[in-house]
Amino acid sequence: MRNIQLTIEYDGSRYDGWQKQPGSKSAVTIQDKIEDVLSKMEGETVEVVGAARTEAGVHAYHQIANFKTDSDMKVYEIKHYLNRFLPRDIAVVEALEVPERFHASFNAKSFVYEYKISIGEVPSVFDRKYNYYCFKRPDVAKMKEAAKALIGTHDFKAFSDNKRMKKSTIREIYSLDVYGDDKEVLITVHGDDFWPHMVRIIVGTLLQAGLGEIEPEDMAKILESKDREKAGPTAEAKGLFLSEVMYI
Amino acid sequence: MRNIQLTIEYDGSRYDGWQKQPGSKSAVTIQDKIEDVLSKMEGETVEVVGAARTEAGVHAYHQIANFKTDSDMKVYEIKHYLNRFLPRDIAVVEALEVPERFHASFNAKSFVYEYKISIGEVPSVFDRKYNYYCFKRPDVAKMKEAAKALIGTHDFKAFSDNKRMKKSTIREIYSLDVYGDDKEVLITVHGDDFWPHMVRIIVGTLLQAGLGEIEPEDMAKILESKDREKAGPTAEAKGLFLSEVMYI
Repeated sequence: MRNIQLTIEYDGSRYDGWQKQPGSKSAVTIQDKIEDVLSKMEGETVEVVGAARTEAGVHAYHQIANFKTDSDMKVYEIKHYLNRFLPRDIAVVEALEVPERFHASFNAKSFVYEYKISIGEVPSVFDRKYNYYCFKRPDVAKMKEAAKALIGTHDFKAFSDNKRMKKSTIREIYSLDVYGDDKEVLITVHGDDFWPHMVRIIVGTLLQAGLGEIEPEDMAKILESKDREKAGPTAEAKGLFLSEVMYI
Repeated sequence: MRNIQLTIEYDGSRYDGWQKQPGSKSAVTIQDKIEDVLSKMEGETVEVVGAARTEAGVHAYHQIANFKTDSDMKVYEIKHYLNRFLPRDIAVVEALEVPERFHASFNAKSFVYEYKISIGEVPSVFDRKYNYYCFKRPDVAKMKEAAKALIGTHDFKAFSDNKRMKKSTIREIYSLDVYGDDKEVLITVHGDDFWPHMVRIIVGTLLQAGLGEIEPEDMAKILESKDREKAGPTAEAKGLFLSEVMYI
């Protein structure tokens, strides 16, 4: 069978995340929408594998997915078909034929996420859906300082709100950068794997450091505590973008 | 009475334009939304005057409006009240007390509009609401060349689709600039006054020049013809932004 890789961009505002939820009748996910169009195209049920299970309300510049097919459609025909029938908040940027063994999720080596914070008295109506809005300007230098403690291989249990999580909470963060000017703060994190809410709890804690609610040096203690209560609040989903999935 | 000037930003996607439509029960306009909140604030009917009657689906970075009030609320309290109760696609960027004789519409001397065209095979899901999407890349040099014919004082009747328009169709365009790169084309026009659809018909005609459907030198002939049929199509509302209202 042919194996097709898709690069997908989406505005997650309207969706209950990437992953389909067979147990829920009301959930509408991005995977559902893509599978619906592909199944219509193929005339039989198609399953799509996504690299990252982005959460409800989270957006993507570059989600990677793959699916198997016996169809002899050209990749650009597949791309055009998808873009014609997908809702306007989901776009297929690229479709490629890849080796049959490629699996978008199992083969993913690392992920880059971006988080956008808008600063000021009145947030722009054009950015409101895609920015977490912060009235006070956070101190970017303090956020950068706090971020340092998280870089490397650590047990990130303090940044997990899933009490039933049985798997290891050890992960590696390769980089965690904070950029900022008068109008916005952008946080970029690159790591080997993230669980649901992990990036958003990290952002919420960095923001506490930026707003003087904790000191930058507290970050190491929070990490060591392995206690969700010590970390900051979960930042809103709408500021979060999956920006890259790496396979090497 | 006090006279309060508002600077308003809005995403026009959901609205039937700025101006209220007393004859229509279903129309929802930006003026309606602002008057509703101000009337609630004041406890009596408040009328708001807007500088530009932006059309259905058109956005604004800086619409100017004014209203009279006997209230002794401070201007920042008025601004906060409005931003608290207005829908999330309308924001009051500034509220100022101005001389009683100031009238947002009668005193407006000129207007700047921007039009955004996105180029490429797959338009970004994040820009789709705010860009006219063009698959083929227009020739920006040809658009600039065609634009020159429109600068100055002319009878712009060829760019009016209102056959019952009784007023003069002579207007002055101070500048009409076209900028472009691989991903987008931005058209900025500054003139003393625009009627509904005027900017969008100008944009549609410039785009014809950019796509080689007419020659740049045809623009002068279209202008002279005073014939709507000779000009290009009306470009979509969603790419149009009111970006400035000037009072001097």
